[in-house]
Amino acid sequence: MKSSEHVVIQDYRIQPEDREKALGQRGQVLWFTGLSGSGKSTLANEVETALHRQGKHTFLLDGDNLRHGLNGDLGFSEAARTENIRRVAEVANLMANAGLIVLTAFVSPFEADRKKARDIIGVPRFIEIFVDCPLAVCESRDVKGLYAKARQGLIPDFTGISSPFEAPTHPTLHVHTYQMDLAACRNLILDHLA
Amino acid sequence: MKSSEHVVIQDYRIQPEDREKALGQRGQVLWFTGLSGSGKSTLANEVETALHRQGKHTFLLDGDNLRHGLNGDLGFSEAARTENIRRVAEVANLMANAGLIVLTAFVSPFEADRKKARDIIGVPRFIEIFVDCPLAVCESRDVKGLYAKARQGLIPDFTGISSPFEAPTHPTLHVHTYQMDLAACRNLILDHLA
Repeated sequence: MKSSEHVVIQDYRIQPEDREKALGQRGQVLWFTGLSGSGKSTLANEVETALHRQGKHTFLLDGDNLRHGLNGDLGFSEAARTENIRRVAEVANLMANAGLIVLTAFVSPFEADRKKARDIIGVPRFIEIFVDCPLAVCESRDVKGLYAKARQGLIPDFTGISSPFEAPTHPTLHVHTYQMDLAACRNLILDHLA
Repeated sequence: MKSSEHVVIQDYRIQPEDREKALGQRGQVLWFTGLSGSGKSTLANEVETALHRQGKHTFLLDGDNLRHGLNGDLGFSEAARTENIRRVAEVANLMANAGLIVLTAFVSPFEADRKKARDIIGVPRFIEIFVDCPLAVCESRDVKGLYAKARQGLIPDFTGISSPFEAPTHPTLHVHTYQMDLAACRNLILDHLA
């Protein structure tokens, strides 16, 4: 470009810290992991709404906004699920760099995938929340009818039925959604953030 | 989850409008397109810095933060470049849904790819900015030495040399970086946003 008499601010790039300062908060990722039907999305929505009411700036990544968009090209094979989680982690990392408090609600059953997510996002920004509910309870709810289909063999590699859920060994937070009510689960997370 | 005596806000999901209201701005995507060396990244950085100083909340997506992260699995074939742009558009859309003003700086040489990006992001949130600079000028600068390598045949499908740049026919803004100085280019964009 031609030289200019105007003040030009070139060569300075806005940094994550600048964005956090402008937003008055730290970029973070609340990574909800647990079986289908364990209450991940319900709890993540509840936490997001509470944070929003506190004036925090948030974003929720889940199947609703990723499976038909960014990850619409991915199936449900083990490789595709690993790639799904990798992309979720990369997007969550970018959004945390933008200063947002990001909530992700995906089964993310494999320890290696969650470790990769943690590596991408970085400790201590990565907050792993194990949404723990017994399989029998998740299956008895079966809100989406997925467990019934999985039992009939209509869904291959379904977590808890035909594919393992590798429970987090050292989650940041361990929430027992079967034993605690929703408000208590939410408050446990909010207390940790505060 | 068990029933609760606490007030539970379940079943309400925070919407893009809620986030925009909290941030005091509209989510938008400034899509910079142009040849390598045309000044896309410089201009996008300049605009972002100015917006940040206005108190706006922004994020810049470019090769620096996508090529080694989310799109680290993609090469430079035509199919890979199309997928690259699709993912950029999906991430930019999510970030605009978070209420941010997103700036993207990618060559994005193909009309069909930019049209897909516009469809994903939606009009009028998608602001296409054609960063227009003659090939000869871009090549003479050759900041990264890429044109020299492309001329030697070391980089296949290099835009402007061995692969076409399909200039936007109806960009929202058309910025001639060779004829206007950086501050003037920046102000043209800021004036459009204001």
